[in-house]
Amino acid sequence: MKKNIFLLGGTGSIGLQTLDVIRHNKQRYQLCTLAAGRNISKTIEIIDEFNPLFVSVTREQDARQLQALYPHIVMDYGEQGLIQAATFEPNNNYENLVVTAVVGSVGLVPTVEAIKKGYNLAIANKETLVTAGHIIMHLANKHNVTIMPIDSEHSALFQCLNGENDKKIKDLIITASGGSFRDRTREELEGVSVKQALSHPNWSMGSKITIDSATMMNKGLEVIEAHWLYNVPYEHIKTVLHRESIVHSMVEFVDTSIMAQLGTPDMRIPIQYALSYPERIELKNAKSLNVWELGSLHFEPLDFNRFPCLKYAYDSGQTGGTMTTVLNASNEAAVSLFLNEKINFLDIETIVYNELESHNVIKNPSLDDIRAVDSEIKEKIKTNSSL
Amino acid sequence: MKKNIFLLGGTGSIGLQTLDVIRHNKQRYQLCTLAAGRNISKTIEIIDEFNPLFVSVTREQDARQLQALYPHIVMDYGEQGLIQAATFEPNNNYENLVVTAVVGSVGLVPTVEAIKKGYNLAIANKETLVTAGHIIMHLANKHNVTIMPIDSEHSALFQCLNGENDKKIKDLIITASGGSFRDRTREELEGVSVKQALSHPNWSMGSKITIDSATMMNKGLEVIEAHWLYNVPYEHIKTVLHRESIVHSMVEFVDTSIMAQLGTPDMRIPIQYALSYPERIELKNAKSLNVWELGSLHFEPLDFNRFPCLKYAYDSGQTGGTMTTVLNASNEAAVSLFLNEKINFLDIETIVYNELESHNVIKNPSLDDIRAVDSEIKEKIKTNSSL
Repeated sequence: MKKNIFLLGGTGSIGLQTLDVIRHNKQRYQLCTLAAGRNISKTIEIIDEFNPLFVSVTREQDARQLQALYPHIVMDYGEQGLIQAATFEPNNNYENLVVTAVVGSVGLVPTVEAIKKGYNLAIANKETLVTAGHIIMHLANKHNVTIMPIDSEHSALFQCLNGENDKKIKDLIITASGGSFRDRTREELEGVSVKQALSHPNWSMGSKITIDSATMMNKGLEVIEAHWLYNVPYEHIKTVLHRESIVHSMVEFVDTSIMAQLGTPDMRIPIQYALSYPERIELKNAKSLNVWELGSLHFEPLDFNRFPCLKYAYDSGQTGGTMTTVLNASNEAAVSLFLNEKINFLDIETIVYNELESHNVIKNPSLDDIRAVDSEIKEKIKTNSSL
Repeated sequence: MKKNIFLLGGTGSIGLQTLDVIRHNKQRYQLCTLAAGRNISKTIEIIDEFNPLFVSVTREQDARQLQALYPHIVMDYGEQGLIQAATFEPNNNYENLVVTAVVGSVGLVPTVEAIKKGYNLAIANKETLVTAGHIIMHLANKHNVTIMPIDSEHSALFQCLNGENDKKIKDLIITASGGSFRDRTREELEGVSVKQALSHPNWSMGSKITIDSATMMNKGLEVIEAHWLYNVPYEHIKTVLHRESIVHSMVEFVDTSIMAQLGTPDMRIPIQYALSYPERIELKNAKSLNVWELGSLHFEPLDFNRFPCLKYAYDSGQTGGTMTTVLNASNEAAVSLFLNEKINFLDIETIVYNELESHNVIKNPSLDDIRAVDSEIKEKIKTNSSL
């Protein structure tokens, strides 16, 4: 059956690749709603090509400008617009799939509202599960909503678990490329530039996630996300350095058999799988991975001393409650400061560490608790940096 | 539900490991029948431990000796005994699973008869599918019988296909360790000894299959078997040299996503999976594969000039009919001569090549055609060698 795609974050890296999958499969997918940010020229391009029923952008003045250009399209802006983009009711009988490809904690409320509507989800936005995994998974279960991961690692785990019984999982094994600074010692990280941090060896991604790869916070957030998606305790979620980014993750079962998913570093593979699941469809303009041309694949243990953010993530996950919100919010604020050249690369870790150390955790927090802690932490870090 | 296990080839390498799986899961499996060869002391050990309802051995005199020792057990011998071991009717309501772990074409008729009875199959005997794949798969389909592979490679493919749609397969990718002589040039294969050929770098297996690994005929037979098991054309079955025997095989799907199955070289993993499928159960006394301790995995293209038996297998498979019977029978006879030090290692290839070249293929052969060609080829090679 045809699917309505509700695309939150259409002009970002994942959003544009999602549109590429839709472009090549118009008989299967229809762009139903589009939520974009401040990139209005790109938003116009997308509207012209995909003709969505609803569009939301960040700022009111941009929404007004677009409304004048496209009087037949329903428009809104800001947080309310994002929620509408996730809960819009199209006048057709297609299946509904919300793709949350927005960056940061802004994706939280729209995700919750989409689940309440019973819309299936394809999640590229890590922060939603990291900060509110207990709420999201409980709601998804209640409303019989399937949550498909778009992240290459979680998509790999999802594919490895296809046809398997979750209760027979021994370990999830999440691979990490190591990011742009994997071969530098901690001493060599002093004074690295934004540009250096943004040159990832394997993947072409957005800037926030590229920095998170360099600090290994990205892997930490993935560990927490995997905990919620697959209901696996932290001591059974392993991380392994795998420089080639070919094995995207693995699952070991109780019989010691390991299933792994491999592929070229092409984000359209997990994106399309999330859209087409439970089917697989041909990926247009894709290059096969010829393993005999690869030569070799390498695996190394990951060192928590070298990558303390990974340890902070495991610890926050184990503690639970608002601790993971603090992890995520402090990291988000610190990365933003780094990208704006207000702090050094290693300050990211220090800022996160200090916030985690000083936080009084709220157990089983509500959505409001989470949003309050999130704002408070971000505001505090922003204020401190401008002092 | 508990399963009756009908074990054909109980005293061989696969048979003994199957018994080890039963030993650790007596609440799940009961050894219902046992077919053994000439190793009577081992047969007695197995009877004492597992108390099967029916036992068959190769020779009449051995059957008589055993009957005197175990008057309460139904006994038989020879081919008829083997068929009975595959089709025995136990007086219980358990599921029935026939494990064919006999070596060579002797497994063919009992397998056909088991399928006609509607018993599910776990096949370690390659020759059955290689020589009569068209008959076996047609019958299995007709009698709604599930065929589970025990071979590590086919089990890997089977696990990769779990929950997937067979129609979405792009390529099967079968890995090969390269066998005991993988690092020798063809010139260096002149005059190698049986003992050298029998020392496989990764797996501890029976002698026939170890020689077949060294000639790469084993991989060729696996390609033909995979063709029948998964209904994939030969041009979409790839083989790749993978020295570590850790990735047991892979499947690439139409979206270029590759699923792989990894594990330690422990045959009990695929054996237990075939017994427990569709469930996974804990494997007792098993060592986990810790990928971060592996270091690296290597993949190389396989050279048909270095391993001509692999090319003969692809060609025979493409030709079909009785050609694969000739491939298998000539190889079986030649390996036997080599193991008895009647011919040199490289003569195996020559004998196979000559038989394939001179054979007039019968299209869509009956079981009788296959048996006739099988006997004729073996007899001819045996006679020629003693001239």
